[in-house]
Amino acid sequence: MTGTLAVAGLGPGDEDMVTPEVRAALAAATDVIGYFPYVARVAPREGLTLHGSDNRVEIDRADLSLTLAAEGAKVVIVSSGDPGVFAMASALFEALEKRPDLHGLDIKILPGITAMLAAAAHAGAPLGHDFCAINLSDNLKPWELVEHRLRLAAQADFAMGFYNPRSASRPHQFARALEILREECGPDRLITFARAVTTPEERITTVTLAEATPEMADMRTVVLVGNSATRRVGAWVYTPRSA
Amino acid sequence: MTGTLAVAGLGPGDEDMVTPEVRAALAAATDVIGYFPYVARVAPREGLTLHGSDNRVEIDRADLSLTLAAEGAKVVIVSSGDPGVFAMASALFEALEKRPDLHGLDIKILPGITAMLAAAAHAGAPLGHDFCAINLSDNLKPWELVEHRLRLAAQADFAMGFYNPRSASRPHQFARALEILREECGPDRLITFARAVTTPEERITTVTLAEATPEMADMRTVVLVGNSATRRVGAWVYTPRSA
Repeated sequence: MTGTLAVAGLGPGDEDMVTPEVRAALAAATDVIGYFPYVARVAPREGLTLHGSDNRVEIDRADLSLTLAAEGAKVVIVSSGDPGVFAMASALFEALEKRPDLHGLDIKILPGITAMLAAAAHAGAPLGHDFCAINLSDNLKPWELVEHRLRLAAQADFAMGFYNPRSASRPHQFARALEILREECGPDRLITFARAVTTPEERITTVTLAEATPEMADMRTVVLVGNSATRRVGAWVYTPRSA
Repeated sequence: MTGTLAVAGLGPGDEDMVTPEVRAALAAATDVIGYFPYVARVAPREGLTLHGSDNRVEIDRADLSLTLAAEGAKVVIVSSGDPGVFAMASALFEALEKRPDLHGLDIKILPGITAMLAAAAHAGAPLGHDFCAINLSDNLKPWELVEHRLRLAAQADFAMGFYNPRSASRPHQFARALEILREECGPDRLITFARAVTTPEERITTVTLAEATPEMADMRTVVLVGNSATRRVGAWVYTPRSA
């Protein structure tokens, strides 16, 4: 098996946040595989086949990648953000688990800037002390587990980052998440809505939980919640190192 | 005030993980400020003053940066990993809080690849579902708060990343952390020790909690703990997306 397979993080959107390691993997690739909008970020060139696919077919993409790499291709699966954070790396290993014949394949995971940390940077340093990251989507886990984690995270006084906070198919769940946060953290806790971070449409808004409404988030939004010590300084929001 | 101040993440060590955004900031800087080993990663050139300083003087560095930027310098504070994750961004905002006259200063936080996510990438995808990041050092918070967060994080079934797991001045605390994890997660939970990640000395070892010993970590190690669904596939360790 002389093929290779890399899962590469393209970062949150800004091309200046793509690491040289990822650029080099893309430059050497024969096949780039991923969700359409991420594949669209890779420039076409001779000798490179682009395989764009729809959302929610992560396992199909992983299977195709394994097959092509096993045949000798230099495959790169592109992921937004960091492939290890609610992205393609886990899907690849789920697919690999079913293919013990390919466990010797040359696989690399290439990290990228994940949306939560880009959002934190553009807001200040709201995740400047112990924090957690929660995927609020219940596509792949029961909503009760999301509620359980939210409550314990608040009781642990973690700062928090939420991915996939709200979609058209489940509009009530984010409202429920805000209710739980108000119960556990009180009305004055700071919450930041970071939409389309690092793109020309970026919009970052920080309000208190009392002021937060579900409509402030959509699927392009990462939501950050401070811990009990998080505060504003000038236009910024940050969590002190001693919290 | 025509000066600028950027807090830039150099990533975990590999120069190929430094983003073009950070490279551009360094190329435009008149003054680079930071802990000696991070400043040593910046090439000297005419017109650039390098200000290396010792560990544990984060606030002094932040004060110097604000003063120089207020005088018109183009200052970059260099941080390892991501400046917003247990690094210099929070220290800067703590210093800025005391200087309301400088709240209008042009400040940017430039994210980088944080050690925890580089370690996860090189181990597979152990943080592939909901996770938390905890600084195990009690330099700036009581050890009791660390224990409290560890227990709640385990009860929430978060995967976990630990920074500063162990130092010569507090050798017993990491042993205590392992005890708590064994109580809460059982002996079979996977734990990964990632030392000097992305450097030539990188060493990544995954064992069960029953097999883990405090000596497996030092201050150059990031420790990753899986959630209840985390498992091995080939040489990798990963957390499925449905956990």
